Amino acid sequence: MDSLKEVNKIEGVSTQPLKEITDSLGSVLHMLRSDSPLFNKFGEIYFSEINPKTTKGWKLHEKVTQNITVPMGKIRLVIYDDRPESSTHGNTAEYQIGRNGNYYLIHIPPMLWYGFQSLDNQKSLIANCTDLPHDPSESRLLPLDSGKIPFQWDSTK
Amino acid sequence: MDSLKEVNKIEGVSTQPLKEITDSLGSVLHMLRSDSPLFNKFGEIYFSEINPKTTKGWKLHEKVTQNITVPMGKIRLVIYDDRPESSTHGNTAEYQIGRNGNYYLIHIPPMLWYGFQSLDNQKSLIANCTDLPHDPSESRLLPLDSGKIPFQWDSTK
Repeated sequence: MDSLKEVNKIEGVSTQPLKEITDSLGSVLHMLRSDSPLFNKFGEIYFSEINPKTTKGWKLHEKVTQNITVPMGKIRLVIYDDRPESSTHGNTAEYQIGRNGNYYLIHIPPMLWYGFQSLDNQKSLIANCTDLPHDPSESRLLPLDSGKIPFQWDSTK
Repeated sequence: MDSLKEVNKIEGVSTQPLKEITDSLGSVLHMLRSDSPLFNKFGEIYFSEINPKTTKGWKLHEKVTQNITVPMGKIRLVIYDDRPESSTHGNTAEYQIGRNGNYYLIHIPPMLWYGFQSLDNQKSLIANCTDLPHDPSESRLLPLDSGKIPFQWDSTK
């Protein structure tokens, strides 16, 4: 059975275990359907590879809601809540998702900082189904070491 | 530059080269946006792994339009047109798609038979964005060796 390694909570972030239908020719992996309560509207589906021993972040979307899963490999996803009106303002949440027992969908509303770290010795693949197509004007970036987000990435992972 | 290995044509099947945005931390891979001419409506996004030296097929969807790409690995996709009214009735088309120079989206309308074969030594991953959520009652299956489809899979590949 899948077990999500989840540390802390963030208001508006949802997690959903996804089916991996095992087949000797290759498994079928669910992600998102139009009748899911986590689906709002379709903007874009794209992928982000993450190489072994690397970390991508920090990024924030001002408008986009993301639905993320990891159909190959395994990652640590960290989300930081800097929204002044949020009940979880100041929280940092951590999720270890991917294959081999942690195949989950993570639903991330806008205005949250997030980053990814590879937890696999091979490339991991992050799939992201958003409610708006990519628009570089609605996202913000911060360096991993900016000191503005209270989370220290473990560079040995 | 990408080059699609495409053999024959099928009416209604479209191919689109997709961007791979190279990054030392891991590439970003486009798939489908809501403003694409190949996008109609969102039904489901899911994945199908295909193990090395294996073939999945044949399958036909009576209602579903599929948008397929291969963000990891490489496959041979074969489509057979058995639609009586089609201008390409009786044609079999073959596409080699995946990473390393063949990163394409293939748009497949309903009522076409199709199958996949792995062309990689590792697992390949097929992503499928459809216009209707999965409904087993609208698909048909045929064994690879039924003799009803004029294509011989090369089992050595």
